[in-house]
Amino acid sequence: MSEPSREDLLRFRNVAEAIARETRAAVLAALAREVPHRLKADGSFVTDVDLHVEDLVRSRLREAFPDHGILGEERAEIASASDYLWVVDPIDGTHSLRHRIPLFGTLLALRCGERSILGVIDLPMLDRTYVGVEGMGAYRNGERIRVADVEDPADLEREVIATGERRQFVGAGKADGFDRLARAHGSVRTYCDCFGHALAIEGAVGAMVDYNLRIWDIAATEVLVREAGGLFRHVGRRGRPSPAEGKYDVVFGKPTVVAWVRDVVEGPEDRRRA
Amino acid sequence: MSEPSREDLLRFRNVAEAIARETRAAVLAALAREVPHRLKADGSFVTDVDLHVEDLVRSRLREAFPDHGILGEERAEIASASDYLWVVDPIDGTHSLRHRIPLFGTLLALRCGERSILGVIDLPMLDRTYVGVEGMGAYRNGERIRVADVEDPADLEREVIATGERRQFVGAGKADGFDRLARAHGSVRTYCDCFGHALAIEGAVGAMVDYNLRIWDIAATEVLVREAGGLFRHVGRRGRPSPAEGKYDVVFGKPTVVAWVRDVVEGPEDRRRA
Repeated sequence: MSEPSREDLLRFRNVAEAIARETRAAVLAALAREVPHRLKADGSFVTDVDLHVEDLVRSRLREAFPDHGILGEERAEIASASDYLWVVDPIDGTHSLRHRIPLFGTLLALRCGERSILGVIDLPMLDRTYVGVEGMGAYRNGERIRVADVEDPADLEREVIATGERRQFVGAGKADGFDRLARAHGSVRTYCDCFGHALAIEGAVGAMVDYNLRIWDIAATEVLVREAGGLFRHVGRRGRPSPAEGKYDVVFGKPTVVAWVRDVVEGPEDRRRA
Repeated sequence: MSEPSREDLLRFRNVAEAIARETRAAVLAALAREVPHRLKADGSFVTDVDLHVEDLVRSRLREAFPDHGILGEERAEIASASDYLWVVDPIDGTHSLRHRIPLFGTLLALRCGERSILGVIDLPMLDRTYVGVEGMGAYRNGERIRVADVEDPADLEREVIATGERRQFVGAGKADGFDRLARAHGSVRTYCDCFGHALAIEGAVGAMVDYNLRIWDIAATEVLVREAGGLFRHVGRRGRPSPAEGKYDVVFGKPTVVAWVRDVVEGPEDRRRA
């Protein structure tokens, strides 16, 4: 398998950052108008913004890396013989975008074989771009992110813990774990989608626990969390036949908080089974 | 009791808006530094930012309205013979500010007897200021807010419902109501503090349900919701001996959603008792 050189990584990053600037402009322009939406077969929403942004990303990636694969939420996969696979979620948080809740974003990641080597999360309405590259650190708007673990386990209660929506845990058969967490900690907040991910990447929340995800929801976060100094853990009880088909349950953030949250959500029995 | 003239209201609004500009600058300047915090007797946090901002607001109000009363979260009440009482929460969401979660704000309201006649919510990190004056409408960054009810009750499931943290409902003896709501709707999100209030004021969420609050948490929201065309309801099962002492449980937003959320959280039994 080809390992990217430092030069490769810098080129990938430059293209990804340029794409993020373009998608942000497209999203903000679209928000100035009405955004028609419709329900997808899985009950989630899609808007013309999702489709337009994904097409834009694909077109830029095809120009820059014609031999790489592309997998996105809204369009068919472009397979390739290359080890490189770009993974795109044009709008992560479509429900928020539709309601003009400013906590959605655009996700772009590059996978090499089984791991993410580059991740970008752009939050247009918050004016925040998170960029991480394997071995090169994680940055928010150009500023290096370094997350420290909680110093004292007693501080755990003073952290905020972010979660996806309860229905995601229901979908993963883990409603009981969500409810246990809500009772076990004083500050559990449903900061769903990439807003919660961004807060965990920069250490503003102690950890994020997010279930029933697709690869495009987690690929950027994985490398960003690790490069920021945090821990990224698959709970991993469910089969993942292929990136395009798999469902993922993940916990990430400050190591001590990640371990505690995982234990509470999964429970002792599940841990034995795992 | 004195009723404010239109001229009075305009003057109150101008002073309140000028104060919000000053508090925002003070908050943003403070965020550029480390923010030391300590626990208060009630287990919540206070920082030097809270104290500095409240002192700033009080000083400006004393200059402009020396005969009005002032009630704030962090300092002793300034009583007066006037019907006017300014109510201040210098930082609503201190826990968020401490963690650099950008969803906190400064709240300022003017009460005349038993009702709020002016409310300002300023969210410094989101660059949003909400201003509402009785009979004069609600505005976000100078743009009029008009919230419509859901057109079809079937659309209720597509709304987002905001809540305070579960521990607030525990404090109000209503943990069961919070848990019922989490199971009854697919998109219940803990957008606590004034961020959730702001989303309900502008109709981005269908309703916000927030329990175990003090007068400074709700006084601005009350007039903003009403002037935006929404419904503001006290659940009101608990005694409110005085504004300074009372605890408040409230639901507000689009009328159909408010009625539904209130029924779910309070339950049929409580409704009969109420």
